[in-house]
Amino acid sequence: MSAVYDLDSELAVSMLAMGRDAQRASQELAIAGTDVKNQALREMAQAIRSGVSDILAANAIDLEAAEKADLRASFMDRLTLNPERIEAMAQGVEAIAELDDPIGGVMAEWERPNGLQIARVRMPIGVIGIIYESRPNVTADAGALCMKSGNAAILRGGSDSYHSSRAILKCLQAGLAGVGLPEAAIQLVPTTDRQAVGMMLSGLDGAIDLIVPRGGKGLVGRVEAEARVPVFSHLEGLCHVYVDKHADTKMAVDVVVNSKMRRTGICGAAETILMDKAGANQHLQPVIDALVDAGCAIRGDAAVCAADPRVEAASDEDWTTEYLDSIVSMAMVDGIDGAMAHIAKYGSSHTESIITEDSATAERFLNEVGSAIILHNASTQFADGGEFGMGAEIGIATGKMHARGPVGLEQLTTFKYNVRGNGQTRPA
Amino acid sequence: MSAVYDLDSELAVSMLAMGRDAQRASQELAIAGTDVKNQALREMAQAIRSGVSDILAANAIDLEAAEKADLRASFMDRLTLNPERIEAMAQGVEAIAELDDPIGGVMAEWERPNGLQIARVRMPIGVIGIIYESRPNVTADAGALCMKSGNAAILRGGSDSYHSSRAILKCLQAGLAGVGLPEAAIQLVPTTDRQAVGMMLSGLDGAIDLIVPRGGKGLVGRVEAEARVPVFSHLEGLCHVYVDKHADTKMAVDVVVNSKMRRTGICGAAETILMDKAGANQHLQPVIDALVDAGCAIRGDAAVCAADPRVEAASDEDWTTEYLDSIVSMAMVDGIDGAMAHIAKYGSSHTESIITEDSATAERFLNEVGSAIILHNASTQFADGGEFGMGAEIGIATGKMHARGPVGLEQLTTFKYNVRGNGQTRPA
Repeated sequence: MSAVYDLDSELAVSMLAMGRDAQRASQELAIAGTDVKNQALREMAQAIRSGVSDILAANAIDLEAAEKADLRASFMDRLTLNPERIEAMAQGVEAIAELDDPIGGVMAEWERPNGLQIARVRMPIGVIGIIYESRPNVTADAGALCMKSGNAAILRGGSDSYHSSRAILKCLQAGLAGVGLPEAAIQLVPTTDRQAVGMMLSGLDGAIDLIVPRGGKGLVGRVEAEARVPVFSHLEGLCHVYVDKHADTKMAVDVVVNSKMRRTGICGAAETILMDKAGANQHLQPVIDALVDAGCAIRGDAAVCAADPRVEAASDEDWTTEYLDSIVSMAMVDGIDGAMAHIAKYGSSHTESIITEDSATAERFLNEVGSAIILHNASTQFADGGEFGMGAEIGIATGKMHARGPVGLEQLTTFKYNVRGNGQTRPA
Repeated sequence: MSAVYDLDSELAVSMLAMGRDAQRASQELAIAGTDVKNQALREMAQAIRSGVSDILAANAIDLEAAEKADLRASFMDRLTLNPERIEAMAQGVEAIAELDDPIGGVMAEWERPNGLQIARVRMPIGVIGIIYESRPNVTADAGALCMKSGNAAILRGGSDSYHSSRAILKCLQAGLAGVGLPEAAIQLVPTTDRQAVGMMLSGLDGAIDLIVPRGGKGLVGRVEAEARVPVFSHLEGLCHVYVDKHADTKMAVDVVVNSKMRRTGICGAAETILMDKAGANQHLQPVIDALVDAGCAIRGDAAVCAADPRVEAASDEDWTTEYLDSIVSMAMVDGIDGAMAHIAKYGSSHTESIITEDSATAERFLNEVGSAIILHNASTQFADGGEFGMGAEIGIATGKMHARGPVGLEQLTTFKYNVRGNGQTRPA
């Protein structure tokens, strides 16, 4: 059990109170109308716009501390807000107002021979705990997505962005208050104490229904080990592109380069390219050339190394490394079976793509690979809620339960059965 | 963490091997065709029929041990097999062959403006661990449901029915072998050692994807406290019937008596009747009379006690007691708000029914109560997969994630996205 903390500590008392407040707020949110929720979102966006200077001032505090800690440039970039990024945040919140409200939606309905009318309808999950790292904009995205889907949110952002997140939260709560919804519908853990994460993972005495972790291996590992409540796993994206012998060479080159290099820092970026041995003569050199030309380093197995001196030798660790950088691992495999065996052994169940003109091979790959997203002749970088047409997303779930793939509004709901009768009793 | 056991113990070694075998079998099952799975089910049923004498002999061993332990009559009844019950078990397995195969089913599909074809398709969960108590027929039901939905099953039945379950398992495995499917697709934990349950809850080194507990409070509590893998909670059924002031009296009487008394031992049996204060003059006495006439003891709050000397005083504990017997608790509440407050405080999120002729009140109840199944003018005893038209079920889930309500074949699946393109790359 992870709940090894002093229940009487000041932190525990305030966290448990947060949980109770969130539960109460979730009951109000669950029955709030779509118009009210959308109006709250628009007022949040306005509050973000009129709060630009406060948000920038708070961000400056975070940035100053981060500079002292001498953090990486990419980290500093993610942490930095400016007027354009804040405007984008406000627009993101407004865009969520435009999405369909999933709550109350009928997923299926049917009538039984005895006249009972059964409907499966969407309802909110309740209270969602979101634990994320240092992108302050997640505070707005996650809070807005949870609210629109009728859920209360308890947010725990990275310590490094604490002041920024708090300033953003104030704007979100202003939007809630503006329409008479409880401010406790979106709360931020009021401390950077790491113990607070443990308390969230224990469920706050039954108050938290779901934990969504957004972050690196360390965070996700801690969450999976400690959580006493359901978790939407967001494992890393060890995405593969398999170039079959029946691939169109130009398409293989385009899709591989796009999958790897369009953006290297997102979870849908390809990390390993699997080349069908039987097509190596035709495809291997063009793919290597294009990757090198695009500025990508290649780490290959013996067969790939032998093909080109620019390829470095891969170690075993390379097959399980999410580079999030201009580096790719490349292995030669024995057809689709070799590719599927490699993916089963090293993959993270996120996204895989097959490039082939042979539809039987493609269908086998689509049918037999068990990852959340399987593509045929398309870039892994399409693994994205927006690209799927779902609107904003909170991440890509790689677990098997409840949500898989992009987690948007619908994935933040559960359902119940409403059964309408006219006095039916069940015969013995 | 619950995995506090010696990994080198004989039990641990054999359990971990079971997990690996199940994983391998699940990969074969995942791509097995519907015809093959149905043929296996029919061969299982035949093996059960021709194995009657072996099953009865094994059951006799269990019954003898149970008699020595002097267990309750209802327990002995659940444990006892006879030729009719064994034939029913065989027919139950055959009935699962008649159900639609959920695997590969397209849940949704759409096309994106860039031409990508996205389909959300059902796939098996993988390896399901089922922990149940002493009904031996669960071995056949659970094994067959998991197999038909493409999942491998690791079954852990009650110690008291161990020999019966093992004899039934042999028949299931004969059916698998008959069509060339791996016998490891359905396994039974080969011991009554309670440590084995702890090992299952730890996930067997990642082999188990889901735990389904079927049993009383003690088992479910242990599972929820210790499980390191997702669980389909099956809490007790603290089902409520609310008789609104606008109820039709005769309907209220019929539905209340049926909800409580048709079968008292099932989780969909009502345990608490909530009477609208404003309708008490009209409805209370007829409902009490009918329950008493049907042989039901009533435990009421002060207002209900005052109405009839045959009502005993309820203690606080009564509101959270699943009697599973001819006893019901009854409280007077202040309209629908009082009823919903009582359900929120004491309910188990299983099934609740409202009896009213006022459709606005009914819609509010259907909309605002968050339990898995909400009924209007119908008996809570309809909370059943068969009555919902889903065919066989493995239980009624009361958790919020993935499955809620009856857990049939579809609920034992997950999904993935298959995306078909013709070379699409994602623009910067």
